[in-house]
Amino acid sequence: MVKVGIAGGSGYGGAELIHVLLRHPEVEIVWLSSQQHAGKNPGEVYPSLRGFLDLNFSRLEELRPADLDVLFLSLPHGQAMKLVPGLPAELLVIDLSGDFRLSDPEVFEEFYQFPMAAIEEQKQFVYGLPEINRGRIISARRIANPGCFATATILALHPLVKEGWISGPVYVDAKTGSSGAGNSPAAGTHHPRRSNSLFPYKPFRHQHLPEIRQALGNPSTPLIFQPYSAPFVRGIFSSHYMELNRKPAAAEVCSLFLTHYGADRFIRWVGENPDVNYVRHSNYVDIGAALQGSFLTVWSALDNLQKGAAGQAVQNMNLACGFPEEAALSGAPVFP
Amino acid sequence: MVKVGIAGGSGYGGAELIHVLLRHPEVEIVWLSSQQHAGKNPGEVYPSLRGFLDLNFSRLEELRPADLDVLFLSLPHGQAMKLVPGLPAELLVIDLSGDFRLSDPEVFEEFYQFPMAAIEEQKQFVYGLPEINRGRIISARRIANPGCFATATILALHPLVKEGWISGPVYVDAKTGSSGAGNSPAAGTHHPRRSNSLFPYKPFRHQHLPEIRQALGNPSTPLIFQPYSAPFVRGIFSSHYMELNRKPAAAEVCSLFLTHYGADRFIRWVGENPDVNYVRHSNYVDIGAALQGSFLTVWSALDNLQKGAAGQAVQNMNLACGFPEEAALSGAPVFP
Amino acid sequence: MVKVGIAGGSGYGGAELIHVLLRHPEVEIVWLSSQQHAGKNPGEVYPSLRGFLDLNFSRLEELRPADLDVLFLSLPHGQAMKLVPGLPAELLVIDLSGDFRLSDPEVFEEFYQFPMAAIEEQKQFVYGLPEINRGRIISARRIANPGCFATATILALHPLVKEGWISGPVYVDAKTGSSGAGNSPAAGTHHPRRSNSLFPYKPFRHQHLPEIRQALGNPSTPLIFQPYSAPFVRGIFSSHYMELNRKPAAAEVCSLFLTHYGADRFIRWVGENPDVNYVRHSNYVDIGAALQGSFLTVWSALDNLQKGAAGQAVQNMNLACGFPEEAALSGAPVFP
Amino acid sequence: MVKVGIAGGSGYGGAELIHVLLRHPEVEIVWLSSQQHAGKNPGEVYPSLRGFLDLNFSRLEELRPADLDVLFLSLPHGQAMKLVPGLPAELLVIDLSGDFRLSDPEVFEEFYQFPMAAIEEQKQFVYGLPEINRGRIISARRIANPGCFATATILALHPLVKEGWISGPVYVDAKTGSSGAGNSPAAGTHHPRRSNSLFPYKPFRHQHLPEIRQALGNPSTPLIFQPYSAPFVRGIFSSHYMELNRKPAAAEVCSLFLTHYGADRFIRWVGENPDVNYVRHSNYVDIGAALQGSFLTVWSALDNLQKGAAGQAVQNMNLACGFPEEAALSGAPVFP
Repeated sequence: MVKVGIAGGSGYGGAELIHVLLRHPEVEIVWLSSQQHAGKNPGEVYPSLRGFLDLNFSRLEELRPADLDVLFLSLPHGQAMKLVPGLPAELLVIDLSGDFRLSDPEVFEEFYQFPMAAIEEQKQFVYGLPEINRGRIISARRIANPGCFATATILALHPLVKEGWISGPVYVDAKTGSSGAGNSPAAGTHHPRRSNSLFPYKPFRHQHLPEIRQALGNPSTPLIFQPYSAPFVRGIFSSHYMELNRKPAAAEVCSLFLTHYGADRFIRWVGENPDVNYVRHSNYVDIGAALQGSFLTVWSALDNLQKGAAGQAVQNMNLACGFPEEAALSGAPVFP
Repeated sequence: MVKVGIAGGSGYGGAELIHVLLRHPEVEIVWLSSQQHAGKNPGEVYPSLRGFLDLNFSRLEELRPADLDVLFLSLPHGQAMKLVPGLPAELLVIDLSGDFRLSDPEVFEEFYQFPMAAIEEQKQFVYGLPEINRGRIISARRIANPGCFATATILALHPLVKEGWISGPVYVDAKTGSSGAGNSPAAGTHHPRRSNSLFPYKPFRHQHLPEIRQALGNPSTPLIFQPYSAPFVRGIFSSHYMELNRKPAAAEVCSLFLTHYGADRFIRWVGENPDVNYVRHSNYVDIGAALQGSFLTVWSALDNLQKGAAGQAVQNMNLACGFPEEAALSGAPVFP
Repeated sequence: MVKVGIAGGSGYGGAELIHVLLRHPEVEIVWLSSQQHAGKNPGEVYPSLRGFLDLNFSRLEELRPADLDVLFLSLPHGQAMKLVPGLPAELLVIDLSGDFRLSDPEVFEEFYQFPMAAIEEQKQFVYGLPEINRGRIISARRIANPGCFATATILALHPLVKEGWISGPVYVDAKTGSSGAGNSPAAGTHHPRRSNSLFPYKPFRHQHLPEIRQALGNPSTPLIFQPYSAPFVRGIFSSHYMELNRKPAAAEVCSLFLTHYGADRFIRWVGENPDVNYVRHSNYVDIGAALQGSFLTVWSALDNLQKGAAGQAVQNMNLACGFPEEAALSGAPVFP
Repeated sequence: MVKVGIAGGSGYGGAELIHVLLRHPEVEIVWLSSQQHAGKNPGEVYPSLRGFLDLNFSRLEELRPADLDVLFLSLPHGQAMKLVPGLPAELLVIDLSGDFRLSDPEVFEEFYQFPMAAIEEQKQFVYGLPEINRGRIISARRIANPGCFATATILALHPLVKEGWISGPVYVDAKTGSSGAGNSPAAGTHHPRRSNSLFPYKPFRHQHLPEIRQALGNPSTPLIFQPYSAPFVRGIFSSHYMELNRKPAAAEVCSLFLTHYGADRFIRWVGENPDVNYVRHSNYVDIGAALQGSFLTVWSALDNLQKGAAGQAVQNMNLACGFPEEAALSGAPVFP
C-alpha cells in the first residue's frame, strides 16, 4: 500500500481527493492537514465523510515527508512554492494549485499578481495532463496538476492545434459551477446571486489563459478566454469557436478527435450532445463539435473537482506509481 | 407627497423597500442610509436599481428626522432600539427588525440573546400585521413590522385559534428561501451547500416563535416551530399540522378562512394547491388546507421580502397615512 | 381606454402580457383565447393570476376583431400567418411569433421548416425593435415582435455594425432560461436534466439567426449563433466575440453605445458587470463589454419574457398608440 | 459471477441499478429491458453510461429467466404483478415497484387505485428493509424493495415505535427531489415550475403511508404523511414531529437510535445537522433529532435513487446472495 498525505485537505479539492482515494485499492491515506480545522476529523468538516476516516487533520507544520510515498498539495495559490523546496526529491509531489504550472516567471507574475518564488524547483515539474503528456508523467516525481478550465480547453483544442487546422482567433466561452470557487463564502457564491443567473469575470486576464497557451505550444493564433460563473455546483462546460483553414466533413472532425484520443479512456466523443449532466462525479471529459463550412464549434464538459482537480491528480498518481491509470476512477458518471 | 427615509437601505429588505416605494404614487424617497456603502448610489450596490434614484446613501448619523414624514428602519437586530428613543413622536416609524415586536423583555432576551434596551418605547409600538390588527395600525406612529415566518404562521393559524378549533399541539414546518438570510455571504447561503438540499436550523429556539405566540394571544396549546433553509431564493412555504376538536367538512374549513379574511385583499384561499411560485414578487399570501377527519394541515405561502418584510411595511405605511391599502402593492404575483 | 385582446393567452408569453397589461393605465383586456383552456379563468391556469381577471379564455374561433383596438398574437409558430389575412387593416396587430419577422420567404422556410403562407401580409409588418426602428413602429398597424435571442444580439451588435467597426466573424454564445421553451413539459425542460447543467442546441440553424442578420442589414461579416439551455428560469445572457478593425480605448466603446442608445430608456451600459439578476422582471437590457487590443467581447442581458417578448410587445403598443413608451414598463428590475 | 437482469432498465431506478451494479465485484449484468428503447444501448438513453455496457435493451417479452440468477424489476406500478407469477421459484426477484409491498389487498387497492392481481405471490415476498428485516431477507427469493419515502420514515420512527415512546399522532413532512418522479416530463417536473418553489401533493393519500404503517406494525397512533415536491433533483429529507410519553435527555434519544442501529453500517446519527447534501449518491441514511421536553423532532435524509431505490435493492441482493452487505455500496456520500 502506498502511503499518501494531503496538505490542504479541508478545501473542496482536498475533500474530493479523500473521496477518490478512499476507493483506491493501492492507497492508504495516512496524513491530512488543515490550518483551520487542525485536530478535527474530516467528517466534522465534511459530514458526508462521517465515519470514513480514523485520521484527524494535522497542521501543515507537522508534515513528516519521510512517512509518505505521495504528497498531494491542495493549498491556496502561493503556498506550495514555499513548501516544495524543502521536500525530499524522491517523494512524489502532486500540486493542485497553479504554483508550478507556468515555466515563465514573468508570465506567472503577470497573471497571478505575485512573484514566482521557486523558479528552480518549477523546472522539475511535469505538467500533469495525461492525454497530452503521459510519457513524462510516468517518470515524474513532481507533477503540476492542471487547472480545471485549462483541462477543458486544452483537450478541446489540442488535436486541432497539433494538426494545424485553426485559422485566426479562437474564442473560449467557459462556464464553471460554484464549487470551483472553493468552500469559503463570497459575493460570487452567495446563493441569492449565484442562483438563477450567469455572469462573466476576469475578461482577458484569467490565470488559466497562459497555462492553456503553454500546453498548446504557445500557438501564434490569438486565444480569447472568457470565464463565467454559472448557476450549478459541479462542472465545467466550455465552448470553443473558431474558423478552420479548410472545410472538413463532419466525419473528419470526429475522426481527428478519435484518432488523437483513441487510447484515452477518459475522453468520449459525443458529437452535438455534450452536457455537464453526463460527466458529473466522474473523471470523464465529453468532447463534441458542430461544423458549418469552415466554422467549427468544439465543446468540452467535465467535472471540475474530478478531471478538473482531484480525479486528474489521482490519474497522475496512478501513472507515476505504475498503477492502472483508471484505478479508483473507473466509475461511470452519475445522472440524474 | 410623503417624504420617506430608509435607515439600512443596503440590505435586501431595504432594497425591496426602495423597489416598492419607487412605484408608490404618494411617496418620495428623500433619504437612505448605509454604513457600509455611504456615499454610493443604490445602483452601485444593487445594479438592478441603476438609474432609478438620484440619491446616495448617507451614514445613519446624518439622519435629520425633521425632513421626513415616514422613517423605515431596516437595520440589524438591536440597532433600532438605540435609535428610536431619540426620534420625534410625530414621525411615523416602521421598524422591520425584531426589536419592538415582543412586549415581554424577558422573552425577548431569551430568544434574541441580548437585553431589550428600550422597554418604554416598545409599549408605543403596534404590531403591524394588518389582517389581524388593522384598526390599531391606522392610528399608529410606531409600527413593529412582523417577521417573515411569523406572518406566514400567524395568518395560517389565526382563524383556527380565534374560533377555538385546535386541540393539542400545532407543529410548524417552515421553509425559507436564501434571501431571508440577508446579503452577507455565510456558510448557510454558500451556493454549493444551499443548492440541491434542505436543512433545519434553530430547533425550538427561533425568535419568531414567541412573536407568533404573542400575536395569537399566547394560546395554551403547544406550538412547535421548526425553520428550514430551502434551496430557493425568494419565498416562505409554511406547513402547519394539527388535530382539531371537531371533524369539519372541507367546506367548513374553507368557509372559516374566507369569513375571517374576506375583506383582506392580500389573502387568497387556494385549497390543496399552495405554491411559492404563485405569490412571488407580490404582497399576496396564499393559504390552503387539506383535511382528514379531525386532522388538518394548513399551508401558507408568501414572498419573504414582500409580505414577509418590505411589502407589508408599505401596507402598514399606507394604512397609517390614509392611502389605499394596496397602493404600490396591487401587482399580480409573477410566474414563471 | 384601449380595448385589447390576446390570442394564445395561456402560454408563458400570454401570461406575461396579461401581467404587464394589468398595470397599464390606458388599457383594458377584453378578450383572451386558449384552445386548451377555453372556458377557464386565467387564474385557473396560472394561479399567480387568481383574482385578477373577470374574463375567461375563449376559443380562437370566437374572435371578433371589431370589438378590439389592439390584438396581440401569442400563438405557436405558423398560426398567426393563417389568422392575420382575415383581420381588418385598421386593427393594431402585434405578433409575438416568428411568422412575420423575415422578409425573405425562402429564408423563412429554410429555418422554420415550413412555408411562409402569408407573403403579401408580411410586407405590411414592421419589425418591432424600438431601439432601432422606432420611427416606423409609431405609424404601424402590423408589428412583428422580435425574438428573445434576436433582441439580445441585435442590440449588442447594432452600434458596431452601423459604425463599421467589426472585422471578421462574430461568434454569439447565447444562454437562455427554461421559460423560453414555453409551458409544455419536454425533455429539455425536465427538472432532473435542466437543473445543474447547460447544453447546446440547434448549432448554426436557430431561427433567430436570419432575423438577426436581417435586422443588422445583412452584413457581409459571418455571424455564428449558438444557443444554450441554461439552468435558470428567466433570462437571456448573450456573449458576442469579435475582432475589430481598430484598437479603440475602452472609453470609446462605452461612448459608442451611449451615443447610439442615449435616448433609449430601456438600455443601460454596465461595463464589465452584466448579470441576468439585474434585469429580471423588467423591460431593461443591460449591455456591457470588455476589450483587449482589437478584441472585443460584448454582453447583453435581458428578461426573455419581458424585453424578449411581452414587455417589448407592450413597448411597441405604446409607441403605435401614442402612449408614453414606458407605460406599464417603468418598474425597476427585481433582485434578489 | 452472478448473472443479473433488469426489467425496466431505462427509468431512473433502472439506470441507477446499472450504475451501482457496474461496480459490483460479484455481478455481471446480462440482460436489460426497455419497451421504449428496445434495441438501443443504455448509453444512447443515458449518455452518462456511454461506453460502459456492451449490452442493448431487449423487450420484456424476450426475458429468459433461466439465464439469470437475479432479476430486478424496475417497472411502473402494476406490471410486476403480471410478470412475477410466471417466474421460476428459485430465481431471486427484487421488485422496486409498490406491487408486492402491501399484504392487505384492500389497502393496496385503496391507495393504488387498482386491484392487487397476484395475492398469492405476494405472500412469498419479504419486505426488503435490511435494518428492520435482515433475517428474513437473507433467505428470501422474493423481495419487495421499499418505497423511498417509506424507507426514510420507517427508519426514523422504528426505534421509537418499538420502544413505545410515542404518545399521540406523528406528523411527517417529507420533501423529495424531482428524480423521484421518474424520467418522463410532466407538469410537476417542468423546470419553470419545479425550480425555486416547493409544493405539496397527495395529502393523506400517498401510497407509502400504508407501507410505513405496515412496516411499523400498524401502530395505533395516528400517522399523518404529507409529501412535497422540492426544488432539488436527488434526495429525500423527511421531518417527523411527535410528542413522547416521557421527557428523555437528549443523550437518551441519541442512545436509543445508536442502540437500535449500532450494527447498521448505512445509518449514521447526526444530531441536529441532517442535510441531503451529506448523503447524496450513497446508500447512507443520516438520522438526527431535536428535543424539547416531551416534544421530539426526528429527521432522516437519504438519496432517493440509492437507499430509496437501487442502492437498497443491491443491499438486498447482497444479503440474499451471501455477499458482503456493503458490496458496491461502500462509497462515501458525495459533497459538494
